[in-house]
Amino acid sequence: MAREYDLVILGGGTGGYVAAIRASQLGLKTAIVEKEKLGGTCLHKGCIPSKAFLRSAEVYRQSVNAEQYGIEIQEVKINFDGVQKRKQSIIDQLHNGVKSLMKKGKIDVYYGTGRILGPSIFSPMPGTISVEMANSENEMLLPKNIIIATGSKPRNLDGINVDGQVILSSDHALELQSLPKSMMIVGAGVIGIEWASMLADFGVDVTVLEYGDRILPTEDVDISKEMEKQLAKRGIKFYKNTEIIADSIEQTNGVTLSANVNGNAQSFSAEKMLLAVGRVGNVNGIGLENTEIEYDSNFIKVNDVYQTKEKHIYAIGDVIGGMQLAHVASHEGIAAVEHIVNGTSHPLNYTNIARCIYSYPEAASVGLTEQQAIEKGYDVKVGQFPFKAIGKALVYGQSEGFVKMIADKATNDLLGVHMIGPHVTDLISEAALGMLLDATPWEIGETIHPHPSLSEAMGEVALAVDGKAIHF
Amino acid sequence: MAREYDLVILGGGTGGYVAAIRASQLGLKTAIVEKEKLGGTCLHKGCIPSKAFLRSAEVYRQSVNAEQYGIEIQEVKINFDGVQKRKQSIIDQLHNGVKSLMKKGKIDVYYGTGRILGPSIFSPMPGTISVEMANSENEMLLPKNIIIATGSKPRNLDGINVDGQVILSSDHALELQSLPKSMMIVGAGVIGIEWASMLADFGVDVTVLEYGDRILPTEDVDISKEMEKQLAKRGIKFYKNTEIIADSIEQTNGVTLSANVNGNAQSFSAEKMLLAVGRVGNVNGIGLENTEIEYDSNFIKVNDVYQTKEKHIYAIGDVIGGMQLAHVASHEGIAAVEHIVNGTSHPLNYTNIARCIYSYPEAASVGLTEQQAIEKGYDVKVGQFPFKAIGKALVYGQSEGFVKMIADKATNDLLGVHMIGPHVTDLISEAALGMLLDATPWEIGETIHPHPSLSEAMGEVALAVDGKAIHF
Repeated sequence: MAREYDLVILGGGTGGYVAAIRASQLGLKTAIVEKEKLGGTCLHKGCIPSKAFLRSAEVYRQSVNAEQYGIEIQEVKINFDGVQKRKQSIIDQLHNGVKSLMKKGKIDVYYGTGRILGPSIFSPMPGTISVEMANSENEMLLPKNIIIATGSKPRNLDGINVDGQVILSSDHALELQSLPKSMMIVGAGVIGIEWASMLADFGVDVTVLEYGDRILPTEDVDISKEMEKQLAKRGIKFYKNTEIIADSIEQTNGVTLSANVNGNAQSFSAEKMLLAVGRVGNVNGIGLENTEIEYDSNFIKVNDVYQTKEKHIYAIGDVIGGMQLAHVASHEGIAAVEHIVNGTSHPLNYTNIARCIYSYPEAASVGLTEQQAIEKGYDVKVGQFPFKAIGKALVYGQSEGFVKMIADKATNDLLGVHMIGPHVTDLISEAALGMLLDATPWEIGETIHPHPSLSEAMGEVALAVDGKAIHF
Repeated sequence: MAREYDLVILGGGTGGYVAAIRASQLGLKTAIVEKEKLGGTCLHKGCIPSKAFLRSAEVYRQSVNAEQYGIEIQEVKINFDGVQKRKQSIIDQLHNGVKSLMKKGKIDVYYGTGRILGPSIFSPMPGTISVEMANSENEMLLPKNIIIATGSKPRNLDGINVDGQVILSSDHALELQSLPKSMMIVGAGVIGIEWASMLADFGVDVTVLEYGDRILPTEDVDISKEMEKQLAKRGIKFYKNTEIIADSIEQTNGVTLSANVNGNAQSFSAEKMLLAVGRVGNVNGIGLENTEIEYDSNFIKVNDVYQTKEKHIYAIGDVIGGMQLAHVASHEGIAAVEHIVNGTSHPLNYTNIARCIYSYPEAASVGLTEQQAIEKGYDVKVGQFPFKAIGKALVYGQSEGFVKMIADKATNDLLGVHMIGPHVTDLISEAALGMLLDATPWEIGETIHPHPSLSEAMGEVALAVDGKAIHF
């Protein structure tokens, strides 16, 4: 017997389960089909475990440097098993939290692989879902609406054998049972840089190979430069304009390979290699071929309210590409649910979405980079303010980095804010609210930032846009 | 020969030197008269040194607890001399920064005690300033305008002999050369609570005596309760409704005293005692008696653009009372300067000013408390969201505390935000911008807060105001 639902969500990751909660709040009878665990990549293989590692790395770094704070420590050692156990206990706690949110919202969860079926005698439209259950008989679900939130997996490069032993994806890296002596990281995007920073803190010898001409290619150029400068100072070696030659890879005793660096062949070796070259959507095995849904090998195509070509089937999160961030997925999920219920929804403005890098130093940004603003034809005015002029940054013991603000000369509109330095992943939310509310730099400068606080950098940079900073 | 200035500022603290910078930016020929050091209480005896101590206390606490992060440490010891030296080096660095800002702004600094003189043959109005210089002959300054920014000093209680050895003000406490075994703190305001938290982290046995019926009496009641709960868990003993009997104090071998606790006499003893019962303005010895300025033994009276009864003499910062915060002083200074130059100024809205407590846990707030909002006649709606439901708080290792938001049911206006927990002194700036821009909770909830970040608590509490939080 097929079970009827107002909404079935394929995938219980951050996109899917948040959509389910909002659907439940709005009165929809809702189910989630989840192949592995509620919480998805973000909770089990992404944001949370990597940040847990980064936090242990931070505590280790601070302990090693404790003397500068007047704290004497005899001997500091990494107990990597303890680092892993802490990570797992945080995941378990949050995982239990998500499960209890599902119960509270009366959301049914089917653990198994869901496939969308084509039109049948039960349903003139495609959309019946057959669930191959992990631990019981298969189920048939008959939803009025579907949200596909199947997420993504690490991208591979042609000819590279990601064996999980010597060549790792980020999934594998999170399960390491001990730290390697050296790590080659291919790809200097957010994931590559977070791993580089964390491993360097843990004392691993890190080399980063990047195809493009700078690290963090989606960030403002000044952020890329400052990040590279600070990481290089901690011993991380960067090779840009570097293309690895896949068939040169040897992975018997560690990994060795050749790469073209600025056109010249050069050889590299390390105990292990991490491939961090982006993520592709999970589009296979979910029955898309039984529908009119448009998709390619990486991503599903949707309109601006997240509908696929089948209007009752929505798709959100990593599987539709774009920013591929957990908070984007969850807000797309909320928007899709509100469209299902109300026939209309408040569209996401992607320009206003903050993005964070949790390396040491942290980086965070919202809005346009200076280059993007210029390319869009804005006559920009730019302010920059260094953390070294912020008392709280000195007190904290991290005063490198800066905040950069870009505004439109003609209208005074805030166009973008880019930060690198202490706690900027906390500080960026003020900028995000400013973007949403169309604040001008003047208004942000008028906001009285508490002293001594790191947020004073926001107040100062806003004044700096008009040449009126106080402390620089 | 008297030297002529557009503006002379009495006092080079955070209020005075920031006012001087803005005056210089606006083209005024400006001088500061400073009795001790540029930077004032905030830099030398207040915000900065206390936060430096708190940061060392945090590093010590984290090191002691490092094992929970998978970091093994053999032995952790406080080198209090190192803590003091680090504090001093931060002060020196910032002090040099302020001095170079004065040079850059071509602001003359007279090191000495300034006194305002009455009308004379040089000046029909009172306002000539005689400076008793520390290291040279006295100077006479003839300013068109004056800003009094002489700051404040710790308040004493009748009958208490603050000897600087056993009974300390916060000035003395910052100069301690070693940690006492036990400390009795009189007063559970911001200063008392920061010291209590810091000393407890450093292993000192702390007892707090408070006259009122709760700690942090200016904060929301829920913040007071949560702070007391968390500090008590760390071993700090609190006695409220407690009035010390001054003439019972013995301070020969440590300090012993009697106090009425809820009306019952009880005796207390400790190695040292810190008196933290507020601060009074420095109104004496600056020549106020030579003017028409209204003042009492604590504070100078000003109008809403910071003019005293003598319209060309302004007063700002701690010496006028009110919030007595560094960031308030500097913004009052800017407002006074703009009023001098433009004859008008953008008034400070004190309701929008954030206030921070840098204890562990941190607390921060902006706007009305729930109680204040109700007393003002608002029909309030209140949201509260706990950090234990925020992934990043678990990752960080500090998940106690909450964010509380108060809004007006009738208009949806944001009335106040109150936070206690990790990094809230950073997070409060988003709330402060929201207050300034008259944001509604709905707008803050629409702002996409990055995941995983502590700022998600702001997004969630804004949804919670309307019963729509996702993760609780």
